[in-house]
Amino acid sequence: MTLSSTSSRTFDQLCNHFQETTLLHSANSLLEWDERTKLPTSGGPYRAEQITYLAGLIHQRETDLQVGAWLEELEGEFTDQDASGDKWVVMRELRRQYDKKTRLPQKLVEGLTRASVLGQQAWVEARKNDDFAILQPLLDDILKFKREQAECLGYEDVAYDALLDEFEPGEKTANVTRVLENLREELVPLVAAIQDSGKTPSLEILNREYCVEEQRKFGESVAAHIGFDFSRGRLDVTDHPFCSSMGPHDCRITTRYDAHYYPTAFFGILHEAGHGMYDQGLRADWYGLPPGSYVSLGIHESQSRMWENLVGRSYAFWQHFFPAAQAAFPTVLQTITLDDFYFAINDVRPSLIRVEADEATYNLHIIVRFELEQALIAGNLSVADLPDAWDDKYQQCLGIRPANRADGVLQDIHWSAALIGYFPTYSLGNLYASQLFDKAEEDLGNLNAQFLQGEFQPLLRWLRKNVHSTGQRYPAADLVHRITGTEIHHGPLMKHLRDKLEPLYGL
Amino acid sequence: MTLSSTSSRTFDQLCNHFQETTLLHSANSLLEWDERTKLPTSGGPYRAEQITYLAGLIHQRETDLQVGAWLEELEGEFTDQDASGDKWVVMRELRRQYDKKTRLPQKLVEGLTRASVLGQQAWVEARKNDDFAILQPLLDDILKFKREQAECLGYEDVAYDALLDEFEPGEKTANVTRVLENLREELVPLVAAIQDSGKTPSLEILNREYCVEEQRKFGESVAAHIGFDFSRGRLDVTDHPFCSSMGPHDCRITTRYDAHYYPTAFFGILHEAGHGMYDQGLRADWYGLPPGSYVSLGIHESQSRMWENLVGRSYAFWQHFFPAAQAAFPTVLQTITLDDFYFAINDVRPSLIRVEADEATYNLHIIVRFELEQALIAGNLSVADLPDAWDDKYQQCLGIRPANRADGVLQDIHWSAALIGYFPTYSLGNLYASQLFDKAEEDLGNLNAQFLQGEFQPLLRWLRKNVHSTGQRYPAADLVHRITGTEIHHGPLMKHLRDKLEPLYGL
Repeated sequence: MTLSSTSSRTFDQLCNHFQETTLLHSANSLLEWDERTKLPTSGGPYRAEQITYLAGLIHQRETDLQVGAWLEELEGEFTDQDASGDKWVVMRELRRQYDKKTRLPQKLVEGLTRASVLGQQAWVEARKNDDFAILQPLLDDILKFKREQAECLGYEDVAYDALLDEFEPGEKTANVTRVLENLREELVPLVAAIQDSGKTPSLEILNREYCVEEQRKFGESVAAHIGFDFSRGRLDVTDHPFCSSMGPHDCRITTRYDAHYYPTAFFGILHEAGHGMYDQGLRADWYGLPPGSYVSLGIHESQSRMWENLVGRSYAFWQHFFPAAQAAFPTVLQTITLDDFYFAINDVRPSLIRVEADEATYNLHIIVRFELEQALIAGNLSVADLPDAWDDKYQQCLGIRPANRADGVLQDIHWSAALIGYFPTYSLGNLYASQLFDKAEEDLGNLNAQFLQGEFQPLLRWLRKNVHSTGQRYPAADLVHRITGTEIHHGPLMKHLRDKLEPLYGL
Repeated sequence: MTLSSTSSRTFDQLCNHFQETTLLHSANSLLEWDERTKLPTSGGPYRAEQITYLAGLIHQRETDLQVGAWLEELEGEFTDQDASGDKWVVMRELRRQYDKKTRLPQKLVEGLTRASVLGQQAWVEARKNDDFAILQPLLDDILKFKREQAECLGYEDVAYDALLDEFEPGEKTANVTRVLENLREELVPLVAAIQDSGKTPSLEILNREYCVEEQRKFGESVAAHIGFDFSRGRLDVTDHPFCSSMGPHDCRITTRYDAHYYPTAFFGILHEAGHGMYDQGLRADWYGLPPGSYVSLGIHESQSRMWENLVGRSYAFWQHFFPAAQAAFPTVLQTITLDDFYFAINDVRPSLIRVEADEATYNLHIIVRFELEQALIAGNLSVADLPDAWDDKYQQCLGIRPANRADGVLQDIHWSAALIGYFPTYSLGNLYASQLFDKAEEDLGNLNAQFLQGEFQPLLRWLRKNVHSTGQRYPAADLVHRITGTEIHHGPLMKHLRDKLEPLYGL
């Protein structure tokens, strides 16, 4: 489409305004990354003030009346014919975001930001001391703010819809419930059959001593090999791994090392590198604007889970990398066979910690959280009752009960960071990952044959073209439908799990 | 003094305004620290945009007409009787800074900031490639901006005065010239006598292999022992070491390691820890406001040079720490005597690199830079001619000539970072350090006897009370005069050098 010269100037002003806002956003990303990787212990309270203040400035800019005026002036100029063009995507998304943000009072935004920074700091303490009481008052505050946020944003069905929409625009609680129920129905019998199979891998090989410095080096070299660009990123240590970008060419992934449990760091690095490659594949020329921004957390997670599981836990991947792993950890792996190692890293069993759960039971961990956070928001569950409710749900969904709070309700940072409505996007990501992977294979031929040769570029290029470079052109569900021709469904994930697990467990 | 309730409210608004500005300032400090310690190689240009944008916001706030109105409203309420009270210090300094900053156009501030960030990035490249041409166009820009800055700020005598005043408020070029000339007159004969003595220590012991990881551990433990608080700070690696604070309880020092030259990192760490302990000794309740801010770079440097040289290169210091150093580097130091080590780290000889220069010749390096940058600003020297002019001055002042640009004009980052008028504060710091140290010894008794016992707290407490906690209550020269009873002069430094060097070289 062609804008008049006046409108063209207005459009540039609008973009420039949001590019400047992105400078503040990305500065805040650095403040947050630093808080979780480098900040001296006494630096916490002041860091909360810095982040809160910048968040306030950002919110002011995002809700500036001038933005509304620019949008109104321009909207008459666009027609449906322009749909999916970059400028149209800018207009559609900025309007959507503006309408949402202008519903939130400045005070709420600042209060929520401060509570979330202090909540994360309290979480670190609470987890270290296995003491939920340290976190409880902060979580009470956060819930109060989140309920207020949902009311301000508005919703048709349930308040939780408004919060889910923050992370997965357009998605509905009822739809996620339906999809996860379908998944659970087929998953529980599969997990039961595995438990009844009488077969278990030798897990002891993963608990031997894996030198942390070698873990870092090997993890970094594999991440670089599959396509994470270290000239545009870094890898650091943190308590609760995450990936964050603070510039179009500055994407940082993090991990935590356990000298006596190899999968934590290695698959954590692959996972975060998957996120990172999505960020690195966004269009730098549109950085901070909708055509250069990720579309939803579900799609983001589809990238991390694909590289972690569909690629990183495949037999072909290890056919390629196992010799290098043996060279990196000679005293540990020299006497181990590839098949034993492969079985160990694909062991399925109900466990307590989400981030270390296997591919099959992982989604049951999500269902626990999804149900609990809906109850918290609906007011059917108090923060005080949350720790026991958590333990009860684990008993019910996974058949095991945490022995302490650190391995129970305190294991994840999300709620302490005011991230409510976030967890279900992990399962959406798992489902999307399998759907996308199947389509990639249809387009590219046998992917495992490529992995076996150490070739990961074809898959990455396919993702760059079909997913990364599209930014926010289409909503997540629409994007997946356009690529794969199907709605979100559990079939491809279940097929992937059966194809892998039935031979391993002789089912 | 007591302010009326209206004025009291105005005063709080004024302080609150500057505390919020400090949130932006400190966020920018983190962006800069990160740029020099962690930033991925491709992240440079966008980082420059982030820092520039925040600097623009800061400048807007610092020159906000509202600030002028608040100051005017309040100034009538203060009398000379209030001088030295915290509130009076706030008023005096904010007025001084406001009058200066309002003279600088926003465009100049942003241009200067961007040029300085890009200049630093170019400097890293230029130094690595030993190629001044990479830096030259950026340095041309920077000089243009600095001359414009001096004209905007105004001056009585020479343009350089205006730039010097940015780092050493109240100090004059003519006075610094006079003091440094007096110093040079006594220094040159001392250095010549040392060169003629025929005595030299064995420097080979410093060039053996010192494991970098052990250097880090030992350096960190000594920094903690003398009083740098790591719960409120950190130590990282960089190209050109610096110290920076990004919060009242977040002070970060940096160093660079050379596995085959021990003094670089160790004395670098002591130096930056000296800066860091000053920052950590500022009043946290006044963070970002004049009573909680450092008074001048000369005073800042007096702290770093005191801990690096007067403490860290003393015989008593090593009587205490040498056994621990031998344990940290057993294969290197086990067969070395304390006396040989002490002589080696106090070796005096004309050399090329300022930051590795000995205590005596160090000030000759400063005189070179002080004269060159005056000529650059006055327009008597072009950037194109600077590299050769540098080499000629080294020939003239130190009797040696750099073999390449990296060890010549490219060795320091300052000019690339638009820091002009900064270098002389290093020598002021050396002079102040000796004056303050002598007075501390007068008050505390034999300091060396304390160092021998590993006791550094008495000196640190004395500095906290007399220097750190006074913030900007008195201008630098006034502060030193109040503490020591004397004007700035070269006597104490020369006496310290003679007392140490004459016995070592048998003069």
